[in-house]
Amino acid sequence: MTAEIFSLDHQIVFYETDQTRQLTAGMLVNLFMLASQEQSNHLDLTAQKVQSMNLGWVVTQHLVTINRLPKLGEKVVIKTQAQNYNRFFCHRYFWLENQTGELLAKMHSVFVLIDQKKRKLTKVLPELVAPYGSVYTNKIEHLSEPKKPNIQPTYPAKTYRVRFMDLDGNHHVNNVHYFDWLIDAMPREFLLTHHLKAVNIRYKHEVYYGQLITSQVSVTDLGQQLISYHQILTQDLENCRAECHWEKMTTLIK
Amino acid sequence: MTAEIFSLDHQIVFYETDQTRQLTAGMLVNLFMLASQEQSNHLDLTAQKVQSMNLGWVVTQHLVTINRLPKLGEKVVIKTQAQNYNRFFCHRYFWLENQTGELLAKMHSVFVLIDQKKRKLTKVLPELVAPYGSVYTNKIEHLSEPKKPNIQPTYPAKTYRVRFMDLDGNHHVNNVHYFDWLIDAMPREFLLTHHLKAVNIRYKHEVYYGQLITSQVSVTDLGQQLISYHQILTQDLENCRAECHWEKMTTLIK
Repeated sequence: MTAEIFSLDHQIVFYETDQTRQLTAGMLVNLFMLASQEQSNHLDLTAQKVQSMNLGWVVTQHLVTINRLPKLGEKVVIKTQAQNYNRFFCHRYFWLENQTGELLAKMHSVFVLIDQKKRKLTKVLPELVAPYGSVYTNKIEHLSEPKKPNIQPTYPAKTYRVRFMDLDGNHHVNNVHYFDWLIDAMPREFLLTHHLKAVNIRYKHEVYYGQLITSQVSVTDLGQQLISYHQILTQDLENCRAECHWEKMTTLIK
Repeated sequence: MTAEIFSLDHQIVFYETDQTRQLTAGMLVNLFMLASQEQSNHLDLTAQKVQSMNLGWVVTQHLVTINRLPKLGEKVVIKTQAQNYNRFFCHRYFWLENQTGELLAKMHSVFVLIDQKKRKLTKVLPELVAPYGSVYTNKIEHLSEPKKPNIQPTYPAKTYRVRFMDLDGNHHVNNVHYFDWLIDAMPREFLLTHHLKAVNIRYKHEVYYGQLITSQVSVTDLGQQLISYHQILTQDLENCRAECHWEKMTTLIK
């Protein structure tokens, strides 16, 4: 049995792009999450229904691969499939294609169910995953852990206060907002001269309203390719760790 | 002669809402701006075309009135009309309606043309406004100036660093991002117990990449209605001033 692939059409609008007129990394993940939410609505397994059971779906890891970020006005197709699950982890795949079926980006994500009151992991309920055609497995894929940044940061660390609009229905910072903290840790000159090609992001501890987070980064230059190693910290607690792969541009974005 | 009204259909998605599952104020303005951009594209007067003339449209003031913010999943119609202009100022109207034509929100905005290199105001070019049906007038409406906050702030001021993703094609912070700074200046408890009913926001000086801004607010409680007076400052420079009208909720958002 194979899980159903759910598709959604979308056209990139200006507030999903940055000054390069390309979709931002955070918005790419928003579009993927939108497809999974639309599938949930379609199956009448809405976020509200899950919340009414005192549960919530939480992302623990995303593996993003980018061939090319779509441009302002471009028409795209977002696809998703709830692949498989074990006692605690659910694996879901996402694809972003253009209208001719060219793969622009993909993502492999791990979700867990949390008890909203205890803020603790709870066992996956088969009735919350079976409708997607997700398959139970004893041999779930293990995704690699992003490496820690060097003690010596490449760029000065930046701090951000969690804002009201960063929170989601789980009353913590939505997984997508971390992308802005990672990306903005890189200087503008870097962002205007490099393409983001891959992100491995691992969420470790929730971040709450009003907290101050620090976004740290160290960069390893491998010639044409560069790797940035990131940490999101609240004081000494590591809330999130990520690894981003970048490619030097041959032509500059205006 | 009356300017054409341009319409756009849209359905509210999760990343346009906050934890109240309602459209955020910033996203309301994004949707309005989207309609005006779509009209520009429709008339082949794209932002790129204006940029290629070394010009850019910049907002100097928005007057927003909100009856009700639409909910997640709600289908809406965004309408806009380029009303009239004089030598320097262009006035545009926006409306947000639900599918039965109920008015949810409206906005009256003032745009100016700037010279991208000199960063200075330039005269409105008739060829950039006539295609919208906008009418030249000697008697342009004068919008009231928001009042200054009290010297004694009601809540502690908050600082924000301008991020890469806050910038737009004019290489300054996009007018919409100021709404997040205004709204987040209010504590969460306030935002969960009050409806935003109106915003008068006046942009005075551009904010650039990497700058630290301070968001200050003082609140006057008039019983069922409250008014918050806001300033966005970079050091001693007043970049923006705004006045927000709020109504106490009779039922709490969960």
